[in-house]
Order: sequence, then C-alpha cells, then structure tokens
Amino acid sequence: MIVSVTADAPHSTSEAVLAAAAEHGLTARMLPDGNGGAAIGISGVVPLPGLQLPGIGEIKMVHKPYMLASLEMRPASTVMVGGVPIGNGEPVLIAGPCAVEGRDELIEAARAARAAGARLLRGGAFKPRTSPYSFQGFGEEGLRHLAAAREETGLPVVTEVMEPDQVELVAEYADMLQIGTRNMANFPLLKRAGQITKPVMLKRGFASTIEEWLMSAEYILAHGNPNVVLCERGIRTFDPTFRFNLDLNAVPGLKELTHLPVLVDPSHGTGQRSLVARMALAGIAAGADGLMIETHPDPAHALCDGAQTITPAELARIHRTMLAMRATIDEQFADEPLVLDPIVLSA
Amino acid sequence: MIVSVTADAPHSTSEAVLAAAAEHGLTARMLPDGNGGAAIGISGVVPLPGLQLPGIGEIKMVHKPYMLASLEMRPASTVMVGGVPIGNGEPVLIAGPCAVEGRDELIEAARAARAAGARLLRGGAFKPRTSPYSFQGFGEEGLRHLAAAREETGLPVVTEVMEPDQVELVAEYADMLQIGTRNMANFPLLKRAGQITKPVMLKRGFASTIEEWLMSAEYILAHGNPNVVLCERGIRTFDPTFRFNLDLNAVPGLKELTHLPVLVDPSHGTGQRSLVARMALAGIAAGADGLMIETHPDPAHALCDGAQTITPAELARIHRTMLAMRATIDEQFADEPLVLDPIVLSA
Amino acid sequence: MIVSVTADAPHSTSEAVLAAAAEHGLTARMLPDGNGGAAIGISGVVPLPGLQLPGIGEIKMVHKPYMLASLEMRPASTVMVGGVPIGNGEPVLIAGPCAVEGRDELIEAARAARAAGARLLRGGAFKPRTSPYSFQGFGEEGLRHLAAAREETGLPVVTEVMEPDQVELVAEYADMLQIGTRNMANFPLLKRAGQITKPVMLKRGFASTIEEWLMSAEYILAHGNPNVVLCERGIRTFDPTFRFNLDLNAVPGLKELTHLPVLVDPSHGTGQRSLVARMALAGIAAGADGLMIETHPDPAHALCDGAQTITPAELARIHRTMLAMRATIDEQFADEPLVLDPIVLSA
Amino acid sequence: MIVSVTADAPHSTSEAVLAAAAEHGLTARMLPDGNGGAAIGISGVVPLPGLQLPGIGEIKMVHKPYMLASLEMRPASTVMVGGVPIGNGEPVLIAGPCAVEGRDELIEAARAARAAGARLLRGGAFKPRTSPYSFQGFGEEGLRHLAAAREETGLPVVTEVMEPDQVELVAEYADMLQIGTRNMANFPLLKRAGQITKPVMLKRGFASTIEEWLMSAEYILAHGNPNVVLCERGIRTFDPTFRFNLDLNAVPGLKELTHLPVLVDPSHGTGQRSLVARMALAGIAAGADGLMIETHPDPAHALCDGAQTITPAELARIHRTMLAMRATIDEQFADEPLVLDPIVLSA
Repeated sequence: MIVSVTADAPHSTSEAVLAAAAEHGLTARMLPDGNGGAAIGISGVVPLPGLQLPGIGEIKMVHKPYMLASLEMRPASTVMVGGVPIGNGEPVLIAGPCAVEGRDELIEAARAARAAGARLLRGGAFKPRTSPYSFQGFGEEGLRHLAAAREETGLPVVTEVMEPDQVELVAEYADMLQIGTRNMANFPLLKRAGQITKPVMLKRGFASTIEEWLMSAEYILAHGNPNVVLCERGIRTFDPTFRFNLDLNAVPGLKELTHLPVLVDPSHGTGQRSLVARMALAGIAAGADGLMIETHPDPAHALCDGAQTITPAELARIHRTMLAMRATIDEQFADEPLVLDPIVLSA
Repeated sequence: MIVSVTADAPHSTSEAVLAAAAEHGLTARMLPDGNGGAAIGISGVVPLPGLQLPGIGEIKMVHKPYMLASLEMRPASTVMVGGVPIGNGEPVLIAGPCAVEGRDELIEAARAARAAGARLLRGGAFKPRTSPYSFQGFGEEGLRHLAAAREETGLPVVTEVMEPDQVELVAEYADMLQIGTRNMANFPLLKRAGQITKPVMLKRGFASTIEEWLMSAEYILAHGNPNVVLCERGIRTFDPTFRFNLDLNAVPGLKELTHLPVLVDPSHGTGQRSLVARMALAGIAAGADGLMIETHPDPAHALCDGAQTITPAELARIHRTMLAMRATIDEQFADEPLVLDPIVLSA
Repeated sequence: MIVSVTADAPHSTSEAVLAAAAEHGLTARMLPDGNGGAAIGISGVVPLPGLQLPGIGEIKMVHKPYMLASLEMRPASTVMVGGVPIGNGEPVLIAGPCAVEGRDELIEAARAARAAGARLLRGGAFKPRTSPYSFQGFGEEGLRHLAAAREETGLPVVTEVMEPDQVELVAEYADMLQIGTRNMANFPLLKRAGQITKPVMLKRGFASTIEEWLMSAEYILAHGNPNVVLCERGIRTFDPTFRFNLDLNAVPGLKELTHLPVLVDPSHGTGQRSLVARMALAGIAAGADGLMIETHPDPAHALCDGAQTITPAELARIHRTMLAMRATIDEQFADEPLVLDPIVLSA
Repeated sequence: MIVSVTADAPHSTSEAVLAAAAEHGLTARMLPDGNGGAAIGISGVVPLPGLQLPGIGEIKMVHKPYMLASLEMRPASTVMVGGVPIGNGEPVLIAGPCAVEGRDELIEAARAARAAGARLLRGGAFKPRTSPYSFQGFGEEGLRHLAAAREETGLPVVTEVMEPDQVELVAEYADMLQIGTRNMANFPLLKRAGQITKPVMLKRGFASTIEEWLMSAEYILAHGNPNVVLCERGIRTFDPTFRFNLDLNAVPGLKELTHLPVLVDPSHGTGQRSLVARMALAGIAAGADGLMIETHPDPAHALCDGAQTITPAELARIHRTMLAMRATIDEQFADEPLVLDPIVLSA
C-alpha cells in the first residue's frame, strides 16, 4: 500500500506509519513527493489507525508491483550526480571511453568529452567480458584514474560495478554506479546498491521486459537508495543486422509508469558508429532525459568497443543538435501534456 | 552484375546490354542513376563485349543480393505519389483512418488530415484480420470512397492490397498500393506489384530481417516497378508491453544500404495512442522520409485500431514539430555527411 | 456460440439451427463430434428457440476465439489424406525432396521414401524463395510429376500452394495442400483453401503465436473445409546458431487446445541435417501425430535445402525408432490421461 | 592453442608445457582426454620448444573460442556428483521442490523423489525472485535442511548459488552448485565457481546464444574447475503462450560442440505442469544426459513455482518411460554415430 503524507503533517505521523509497518514485519520506504509532502510505500497491508493521524493523505491499496518506482508514488524525480541533475528537463550528456585505459589517456578523453558538451564522464574499470581470455579492465587502478580525471576536469564519473562486494569500493570513487545489462537481475548486487546513497544507473537487461526492469529498480529503492536512473541500451531481437536494437518505445512507455529519469545509450543500442548520431537524436525526440555515448579520441585504437565508439567532434555535433532539437520540441509541447492514455501493465 | 551507363551514352548501348542479358536468360532492369545516366542490374554474369560499347561506365561484379534496391545501383531515390514526392528531403505525412468506414466519414477524415498537414490519405478497404469473424473491410466500395475523398481534398490515396488478383483493381483507384506486414514475403503478390507502375509501399514483416525486407523490395523492382517505398512498422519482440516495438535502428541502417525512401509508422509500431507523438518525432530524428499515422476524428469510435489512433489536433502538433525539428537537424548536419562506416551484410 | 446436437437428433434439428444462424447473418459450421453427434459453431449469438428442438445438447456461450478448431467443439480429429489417416494414434511419416526436380528423379525419391517407411510424399512445385533470382520451382509441370510418382508408388502427395488462384489447380493434383510458414496469415489464401475439401496442412508462421496459428486454421474451417492438419516447423529466435528453433512446447500445448492433428518438421525446424534424427524423435516423444522430413537420394546435389536434407537410409532408421519409441511411451501412458491442467489463453 | 599429451608421456612434459604458458602470462588448463592422455588448453600461442618433448601429440592452433569446453579438447565427459555419474550414457533424474520449505517437508519430498527414481535432490535455499517483496528463500538454514535430507535418503543435493561470496558456503553443503539462468553471465560468480572443485550446473541464460553459454562454461573451466554440467531450461521468445520455450535444438547442437554433459529442465522450460512429462521425454529423445524436474508432494501448496511442479507419482511415470525409451533409442542408434555434419560456429 502507498500512504501519502501531506506537507504540513507533523514528523510524528510518518514515524507512526513507519513504525506500524515495521511492527507487521513489512518493508516501508518514504520518498518525498516533490511538493513538500511524502509518500510511504509499504510491502503489504497495515491496518492504519493512522487514518486518524494528522496529515495522512490518500491511501492507495491498488498499485503497481514496483510500488516505489511507480508514478503512483510520486511525480517525475530528478537525481543529482555530483552536482549534475538528471531528469530536470535539460538533457544531459554522459560520454567517455568504453574502458579506462591509462591515467593520461583518460584525462585527455575526459577533456575532449567535456569540450564536446558532456556533463558526466563514463569509463569502465571492471569490465564484464564474454570470454575469460579477454581484457577484464584495470580494476581499482582504473577507479583511481577516474578520480584523477574528475579532479582535472570537474566531470563527475560513472563506472560499472559487477559484484556485491565491490559496491562500497566503487562508491568510494564514483559519483554514480552503473549496473550493466547482464546484471539487471543480479539481485544480491541490487540489494547492496540499495544500501548506499550514491546514485545508481540501472541498464536494462537486453531481454528484460519493462516490468522486470522496474522490479529491479524496486530492489534498489526498497533497500533504501532513492537515487536510481534507468538506461535503455538495446534489446536482443531476431535480427542479427545490428548487435542490439535500441528500443525507444521504452522511453515514452517508462514516462507513463515511473518517476525515475530515463537515459538512452545509442552506442550499445546499435553496436555501430555510423548509427550513433541518428539514434541519439531519436532518443532525445522520444523523451529521454539524457544520453550515454562511448567516445574516444581515437576510436580505431580503443581497447574495447571501437566499432561503436565515436570521436569527440561527432559528439559535439550530437550535443549541439540535441539541445536545439529539444528546445524546438519543448516549444511545441509546452501547452498540453504529451501523455494521453497510460499503459496498463499487470497490477 | 551492375553495369553503369553514362549520361552521354547512345541509346544503343543500354539496348545492347539488355539484349545480351536476355540472350543469356537473365533478368535485367535499368534504373536512372539520378545524374542523367543509368545502371543496369543483371541477375547473373553476362560476358560483355559491351566493354567496347560507347558509354559503359563501372561494372560491379560484387554487390548486395538485393542488387536493384542497393546503394550500389544508385543514390537515394525520390518516389512520386500522385504528385507528392517521397524521399526528396522534405518529410511527408500520410494520415487517415485504419479502415475506410463510409463515404462521408472518409471525406471528413481526409479534410481533417489535410488541415493537420497530411499530404497523403491512408485508409483500408481490404483489411487483413486475425479472426475470420472480424470486419474484413468494405472492399471495392471502400476503394470508391477513397477516390471520392481524393476528389474532394486533392490528397493522393494509399491503400492495402492483399492478393495478386486485386493488384490491378486497387491500382485503378489508389495512388500508392500498400503491401502489409503479413504479406511482405507473399512472393506472388510482390511479383504482381512489380508488373504495375503505381508506387508500392512495402511494410516490413514484423519478424523479418533488414536483408529479407530488401529482398522483398527486390522482387518488385526485378519485375519492373521502380517505385518502391519502405515502411518500418514495428517488430515482434519478447516484451509483451507493447503490441509491437518500433525498430528505429532500421532507419539509419537502411540509409546505408538502399536508395529507396523509408517511412515510419508509429501507430502500429507502438499500438498505443499515447506513444505515437514521441515515436513519430523519434522516427524523423532517426532520418525517416516521412510518417504514416492512423488518425480519426473520433478515435474512440473508429471501426478498428482505435487504441492506436490519434485525433487530427494531435496530428497537427506532430506535423508542426516534425517540420521545425527537421530544420534544426538539417542545419547541424548540413556540412558533413552523417554516415560514417557502412553496415556490411552478407554479399 | 457452440451448439451440440446429439446422435439421435433428427436431421431437422441441425437444419433449424443452421437456418437460424443464417437468418442472423452469422457464419455457422457443423463438425461431427466423433460419437455420432455433431457440434455447430456459430460466429455470434443466436436466440435459440432451438432449446425446444429435439436433440439439442449443451450450448456453450463462452469458448475460444478459434471456436471450430478448439477442443470445446470436438475431441481429437483424424484427417484422411488419400487413404492415410493422420491423428489416429499411429504416427505418420511424410518424406520427399524439398523441390520436385524431374519426373524420374521424383519417382526414384518416392520409391526410396516409401521403402524407408514414408506413407506420404512431399515435394515442392511452387517454391517461395527469398530472392527473386532463385529457382522458383517447376510449377504445374512439377504437379504432374507428383501425380506420376503417386501413380508409381501409391503414396498420396503433399505440395505447397502459394496463392489463392492456384488452390483449385493444386487441389486437382495433390492429396493434401500445404500452406507454408510465410503464408500462415495470407487470409485470402486461407479462405480459398476453406472452399475445397482436400486436406490442408497449415505450417506455423515462424513468428506466430499459438493463438494466431489456430485463428488461421479457423479461417479454413470457417470457410467450410474441416480437414486441417497443423505442422510445427521452427520459430525465429534471438539465437542465430540454427536457421530456426523447433518449438516442441507447441505440440503438447496444442493438444490441450485443439482437436486438429499436429505434425513436426525437424528439417526446417533445425536447418541442419545432423540434428534431424534427434529432433524427429523428440517431436514424437512430445506427442506429435507424425513427421515431415526432407529426404533426397543424394542430399549434396538437391536443388534446394540440401543442408537440412537426409538420405533414405537415415530416414529408415528414424522410422524404425519412431515406431518402437511410440509403442514404449503408449504402454506407459495408457492408463491415465497425460494432460493435467489445460493452458488458458484469452477467451 | 590446444596441446595433446599422450598417455605414455612423462610427467615432465606436461609440466614443461604449463610452465611455458605461465612464462608467457597465459592461462593454461589440463584436462584428461579420457584415454589416459590429456590435453592442455592455452589462452594464446606459446612457441613450443616442447615439440621436442617426449609425448607431445597433436597441436591445434585453430579451435573454438570456448577451447576447454570444446570437443576439440576432449570427447564426452562424465561428471561425478556425490557418487552419481552424469554423462555416462544412463540418463539421470534430478528432482525436488523449487524452494526448500522446512526440514521435515524436505525429507519427505526427498524420500518421495527417491522412490520415484530420482538420483539427485534439488531444492533452493537462496532464491532469485523478480520482486524484492517475494519470499527470498531460507538461506543457510535451507542448506542445513538439504544436508539433512541427503543424510536421510542418500541423495546428493544440488542447490543454487547467487553471489561470489556464497560459493564456499554453498559448496560446504551441496554436492553440485547450480548457477541460474539470470546469473549465466555473472562473471565474478563464474570465476569463483571455477576456484572450487565441486561440480557446477550452469543453466542457460534465457536469452543467451549457444556460444555465449559455452563461453560462460569456459570461465569456470579456465579458472580451474573441470566439473561443469549444462542445463537447458527454456528461452524467451515472442510467444507469451508459455512462460519459456524449451529449446531442444540445443541438446543435439551442444553434443556436436562440447564434451560437457547436458541436462534438460522441462519445468522452467514450459512453466506448466501439464506439459512437463511430454517435454521431459522429448528432452531424452533429443539426447539429454538427464532431467531436472520440480516435484512436490502437494504442488498446489508449494511455496513457489507450484504451477510447473508435478507430483511424485507423475515423476515415477516419467522415470519409467524415460528408461524404456532410452533403451529403445540406444538399440536403434548403436551401430552408427548419430551425428552427421557438425555445426560450425565462429571460430
């Protein structure tokens, strides 16, 4: 159940609701509603003598299974990553190499990305690779390089975490932790990511439904971390033409279901450099809150994913066009809401 | 093999090449190359004494299996539909109801679509339906209503043809014939559509690869009709959230492989009214030459597909935004070509 | 609605029900129930004063959308093909080359197939090919060769029909018409196949759901032809390892939903000769009523599909094992019914 | 590269090869070849003065990317699980409840499974669940119950491990560790499972290709654990009729590529009790080395997965039929090898 608490409710009211849930052995999490009040999501039904408590608003008994992630819990969220807002209406660009290579190389890549318009730096220190014989990333050394690049450029950094016991280590260095497509349903990892407060970017499993994706976000939220950002990165289909197929239906679809910000990754979503610019723009047109794009000063010599990596010059062009295009769209869609009839998934 | 014929070649040169192919029992089709010359695609290898003929240009022995549809044959084509160009750089809007309902209703719908910016009218007279017990369309009467709506509004009309023996009938009334997703690999239908000269809009089979789609276009081209327009309309994936998933990767992907214009249908590609505007804009951002959208003055009472049908007012907003957005993109991408490294499919 | 008519009902009762349906403009089709009585499926609701008619049994208002194909209409059907029963408990083997090659070659292939245990001969005269430049079959000449091979061997023949106007022609020569995977939703073809009485083998669309498949069978049944046999032939998945993936879940799944016999085609369902025997046996273990297998005296030189074609010697081994294995299974599963809880699809 | 070492080679030969690999910073693992000799797989190329070493056999420079798992490394393996062989030609039955419920309940379930023919007991102590609010298993207490059930029945036990840090704990109690479908590409977990010697059952990711699956097995093998068993458990397709679609093509397909034993799980592979028996038998006919089936004395009251869980009585029937059927098949296929032309995946 979801219990709304009004902006003028005394602190004791939410305390009482949380206590009642705990008494029944239920999980309860409170999120601000963006208007001064809050909503409390409870993993079951608590008989609320609380109805008499001051400041109790609406009580929803029927809601989505991903209660905390749903729009029934609160309107659109903004997640702050090292001072950069994601979800506040301005599309954000995250860029950088697939893998952290060396300290100097990364700093150079970060400077180029910043100059091209990027607000956040990406780069992998721990790399999930299909083959045990492939390069597996520089590990903690890579994390230190990321911190150095942040120091030099001021760009907050995003990097992948692959196992529960790495969560604290990665959170020490990174401004946002990335959970990759192959780990979207790694529940122990999600739980541990729920126990920190650093933001988490949860990429979609390449064969996961929208509902499963939101349930995975719910794991993080239910364990206490409200700072979750979703990232569509391509799904696996019957067509081997592309490495993956970017599923942009998911972007406006998610906007009807969840308050969490939504990014799009056209690099993995196409697997091919020549498609990145077009699909980046398409992602923004579809309503994404930002883009994550693999860039490298010299894509042909990138340590991994070179085929889908673009140059900083191309990145700059995407950035300019993205901003202009978004302004154009916002102008036309300012007056009336875009959404007409919401998607109904199983309740 | 593909034989280029220069702009200043005498008529006798192409005649000789075509005759040589016929002599070897091969199919040969000539398409203008857009620069005054032409290219002749031959379904096999002809030993060309033609090398000595005046005006023979490049001879390509290695090319895509969909030779006539490929960029190796010629650069981007424009297809004229009742006076409206598709593929000339201006995005075109095709709109109208799923099914033709009645004469007056269709004229009203056509007027509303035109007022909202549509340049072509769509409407189904023959309807492919999953159930034998569902409404199957008004047939020839529906075709007459389409002709009447064109008369009233000046909008050329597009309508579906479902079987080989309907091709001539539908071509009598329509300005462009639509071959639907379930018929993309209906080879007898493709052959017959290749024997007329009216343009054909070939929708993608919902589980067909890019290569299979282009091979189906090749059927039409190889049988003599050069006027083919492709339309991405959503693929079937593992995720039942949406009726279909619009595959926008296909749009820039096709632009690297074929000269044929590419449309996007966000109505079938989402199955849900509330996603249509966003995915329409995403389609344009991805590089589509136009959109096909289901509209109805009163979607709630449409004879079919009401759930994915939008109102003319919504259509007008999409039209305005599409034009402004496209101008913005063109400005940024004017100087340098968008395409970087072409997709390589099996040769 | 489905109206049961008892074995002892006078002829006038079913006549009255059919007349009542016709009066309401509804489609009505009668199938024997296998016990002397019959069931009448009506495409809507008829207010039945018929309740007072003698011999009216159960009236079902709620049933599957593929009413006539459903188990609610009647228990398991047997379809007779040129004297050979399909669905009577004895698994049947259909074999022959992908394409009819020449008269003598086909007779040789037919003799070899018969010697290996085949009860029916397959061979394509009209071939659906992805490329317009590939061999498209020998057409009517191929049909004559099939008739000649039947004459010589006594094997009834099965061959594909690709367009509505070919139905009568093919029915003149063939004992069973095949509708291929790309035509499963070719509704004009299904309608025409419903207007003959020769049996029709309906292959599953490679990306069609079980429900869509049964709706396509319903088209044939609703237009008057009760002799429909289903054939699972592999679906398209994300894994390019195999040409297609044989979906054997469909076999016991269909047995809970439909009375129509179910065949399995392990040749197309794998695309690879070395997997055919194992997947043929798996199909029988899953409960199929028979197998359709591509064989050729010299697979390496077959005109098409050689990679998935086996020799007659291999076919004979499959036949022997299939019979022995089926006897073993029947022995263990004789006492109690196999089916536990039926699948519930949308009603 | 793969270096064969003959049966009569002195110990110093393999020592020298391993040392040479280590010197070059490469991973090298030795597996017995089943004939007294061995093969050493090296993750790169070592210039072998070893060619002069006594007892060096064939050296393969070209092989599958999953070198250690491939048939190029050795012929079919048998993996021993608590004294029970998997892969030796006798199909093995693994059965038990989805989740461990209580000590007494598990012992009862284990006795029933053993009486029905099961040779190994399954039961989940750590349960991956889509929702954070669902029952997550009894954890270590569940492991103790499994050990108690083994004590009582003599059945070795199989249970799931979900994170790297649980590997040692689970290995203390279990005879075989299961890595579930959502963790097939959890590389840190695979690495840790490679550092123990207890057998590991690696289930296929529900959207993973055959090649990705074998690469995941390679992770375990490359980290030192040779005891890997594969388990096909259903893939995700476009058809929502079934929870998953059992991909039996994978069984004979794997037999051409890998020496590892292959099991089939018809419970998850169908999601539906009524299909389990048929698909279990189909799995055996396809060539599986055994079955893993969810059973419960009272499926309707199972803590999870009740819909796909069968009773011990049904299990017994499957067991009897499986053995009889396998004998029948073996008889027919004894003389000649089943496999004809091997599958060629990318090298």
